[in-house]
Amino acid sequence: MNRAKRTQLRRRRDRGSQDWGVINQILDAGFIAHVGFCVNRQPFVIPTVYGRNKRTLYLHGSVASRMLRELDTEIEACVSVTLVDGLVLSRSAFDHSMNYRSVVAFGKARAITDPEQKVDSLRILSNHLIAGRWADVRAPNDEELNATSVLEFLVEEASAKIRSGPPQDDKSDFEWAVWAGVLPLEMRSLPPIPDGNLVKGVAIPDYVVNYDARLTRGPANL
Amino acid sequence: MNRAKRTQLRRRRDRGSQDWGVINQILDAGFIAHVGFCVNRQPFVIPTVYGRNKRTLYLHGSVASRMLRELDTEIEACVSVTLVDGLVLSRSAFDHSMNYRSVVAFGKARAITDPEQKVDSLRILSNHLIAGRWADVRAPNDEELNATSVLEFLVEEASAKIRSGPPQDDKSDFEWAVWAGVLPLEMRSLPPIPDGNLVKGVAIPDYVVNYDARLTRGPANL
Repeated sequence: MNRAKRTQLRRRRDRGSQDWGVINQILDAGFIAHVGFCVNRQPFVIPTVYGRNKRTLYLHGSVASRMLRELDTEIEACVSVTLVDGLVLSRSAFDHSMNYRSVVAFGKARAITDPEQKVDSLRILSNHLIAGRWADVRAPNDEELNATSVLEFLVEEASAKIRSGPPQDDKSDFEWAVWAGVLPLEMRSLPPIPDGNLVKGVAIPDYVVNYDARLTRGPANL
Repeated sequence: MNRAKRTQLRRRRDRGSQDWGVINQILDAGFIAHVGFCVNRQPFVIPTVYGRNKRTLYLHGSVASRMLRELDTEIEACVSVTLVDGLVLSRSAFDHSMNYRSVVAFGKARAITDPEQKVDSLRILSNHLIAGRWADVRAPNDEELNATSVLEFLVEEASAKIRSGPPQDDKSDFEWAVWAGVLPLEMRSLPPIPDGNLVKGVAIPDYVVNYDARLTRGPANL
C-alpha cells in the first residue's frame, strides 16, 4: 500500500494534525497504547503500557508474549493512543460528538537485546508511567531481565486528531428545548491503597500523592 | 490461521476469561473501542465509540470513513476495549503492574442498510454512551441518515483479561523500604459546560448530572 496514504487525513482536516509537537504531547499524556498487527489477514489489537523517547516508543512484556514475538518479525505495526476529554451533547442526535485527543502511529518494532539498552528502555517506560518510581525500587536482576522482552517501536509516520469545544448544532436546531453542552471527562486517581506488608514507617511518595498532575500533563522530564 | 488460536489464553490464565457475562460487563462499562483491520499487510487501529446488543457491537461514522468502508468488505476485524483501574506499585521494578479490565473481540462487520434498523442501532449506540439522551434530542432526518454509516460487528470469539488487587512481590523483596500498593484510577466527569445558545430555562438532565454512575456501572437498561 502507498505509504503516504496511511496518515493522509481524508476527512475533517480541521481536527487533524501531523505536527510532532502535538503528536508527542498526546503520546506523553497517555500511557495505554493499543497495538495492532496482522498475522496473515487476521488483525490483533492488544492494549499495553509504553514509554517514549523522541520518535521511539518502548513496549515491554513477558518473553512469552505473542504480541512482542510477532512484532519482532519485521511486520508492520500500528500504535493508537486515545484520550477521552468529554461528551459533546448537541440538540440533534446527528451532531453529538466526543472531545478527545488521539494519535495513530505507524512503523515497525524490534527487540532490544543489549542488556544496558534494555534497562535504559525500561527506565524510560517506568518514568513515563510514574516519574521518580524507578529510582526508588529494586532494579531488575539478570533473571528478570531475561524473562522480559523490550521492543523499540520506531514511529515512521503519525497523525493526531483532536476535537475540543462546544457542540456544533445547525442554527435551525437552536430552538430545540433540550440541554446542550459539554460534559468534561478525565482520568483521576483515588486515595492510594497501601500494601499489607510495608516496612514500618515508609512514607507515600510525592509522585503517588501528586499523580493527578501526571495524568493531566504527562511525565516530568527526568 | 487457526480460529481457536485467536483467543487462546497463552499466558497468565488466572487473568483471562472467556465467560460472556464477564466480557459483556467490560464492554458495557467502556465506550471507546480500538478497532483493528488489515489492508494488505498494513494494520490500522482506529478509536471509535460503540454500542452493544447481545453479541453485536454497533459502530458508526461518516459514510466517507475509511475504517467503516474497509470493514464492510468482509475482512476480519478485531475490537479491543480497555478500562484502566489503577497502577500497581511493587518493591521491585519487575513486579510493577496495572489493574485493568480488557476485552479483545474478533469477528466481521457489515453495513446496516435498512433505515429502520439503522435508526435502532444508532439509538442503542446513543443509549450505551448516555442512556436517556436519544429520547430528548431531534432524531436524525433522511439527509443525516444517508450521511451516516452504521456497521454491525458480530463478535465470533472474545476473551477478557482482568488484573485486580495488590502488588505481588516476592517475599524476599518485602524488606525493601519503599512504599508499595495500588493507586486506583478512574474516569470521572467534571461540572457540565452549557452551550452558549440554550433555550431559556432548560434544565441539566439527570443523565448528565449523574453520569459518574454510568462511568462505573455501564449503561442503564432502557
